[in-house]
Amino acid sequence: MLQTAADLAAQSGIDVTFERIAREAGVSRTTLYRWWDSPQVLLLDALLDGARWTIEVSAGEETVARLRRHLVDGARVLSDAATGAPLRALAAGALTREDVRHAFFDHWLAPRRAAAATILDEGVARGEVRPDVDVEVVVDLLFAPLYHRAWLTRAPLDEQVVDEILALVLPSTTPPAAGP
Amino acid sequence: MLQTAADLAAQSGIDVTFERIAREAGVSRTTLYRWWDSPQVLLLDALLDGARWTIEVSAGEETVARLRRHLVDGARVLSDAATGAPLRALAAGALTREDVRHAFFDHWLAPRRAAAATILDEGVARGEVRPDVDVEVVVDLLFAPLYHRAWLTRAPLDEQVVDEILALVLPSTTPPAAGP
Repeated sequence: MLQTAADLAAQSGIDVTFERIAREAGVSRTTLYRWWDSPQVLLLDALLDGARWTIEVSAGEETVARLRRHLVDGARVLSDAATGAPLRALAAGALTREDVRHAFFDHWLAPRRAAAATILDEGVARGEVRPDVDVEVVVDLLFAPLYHRAWLTRAPLDEQVVDEILALVLPSTTPPAAGP
Repeated sequence: MLQTAADLAAQSGIDVTFERIAREAGVSRTTLYRWWDSPQVLLLDALLDGARWTIEVSAGEETVARLRRHLVDGARVLSDAATGAPLRALAAGALTREDVRHAFFDHWLAPRRAAAATILDEGVARGEVRPDVDVEVVVDLLFAPLYHRAWLTRAPLDEQVVDEILALVLPSTTPPAAGP
């Protein structure tokens, strides 16, 4: 059923109705109304299911390696047509409808931002990130360029750009070296 | 006429037609067809006219001051409802229609990116920016967070966040200090 919703979003954008999803997936509308506030929230769940942009935080690695894994995952999800296209359609909805923006923020952006913020907070605890760094701005700097490239400039979205982003942003977030 | 187009975009989004703009502005459709490829390109020109996000590059200032002026200008244009709302509607169109994305890129993003790239290139010539820096990625890092905040997270978009962005990105772009 989530796959049906994802397929519909890829074909027709986000203006898909509960009626249509129910018909195509062969389930009752009542089931859909019970579980999801809106067709857009259902589509987000379908994307979450398919995108496998993990929001899990791996322990026991250095901060830079953990962030890198997260960003490479994001670049792949955004550039892969199967996940990137419906995500872009949802983002377009988020730009024009406040309820879609809330759903997109709560179900897609916020969990990924929180995972990155957790990595940075644990980096602070491990002495790898300065305690006075503004985590929200660092998260913007790491992720916003990926969305901007995928959605607007279509510039390359590969491991090389991830490494360039990390190399430009992370030095300012690390504590001063204790000396050689 | 550009003001009429901007007003229509703010009211009705980007799916405005040449017919409607011509009727409201009291000009002939032929005039519009002669000057603009599509209503969306006309709307972009209307925004450019109204937004006053300068793409001029001021000379004789340090790189950081020139970039800061550019970013503060951008934050204002994106958060001001009069300019931010039609721009957001156009971006939503860019996410779903390739012709709108091209118009948005060519008429809005590219000139602003080019202005920032010029500032960075001149910074290289003045010894204030490392010659090996990837200018396109730096431009993404400086500007993408502004769009991301204005369009999706609605986090504050003020001079403080501009200064935090500059403080996190620019140190990695400056040449090693020559000593005290």
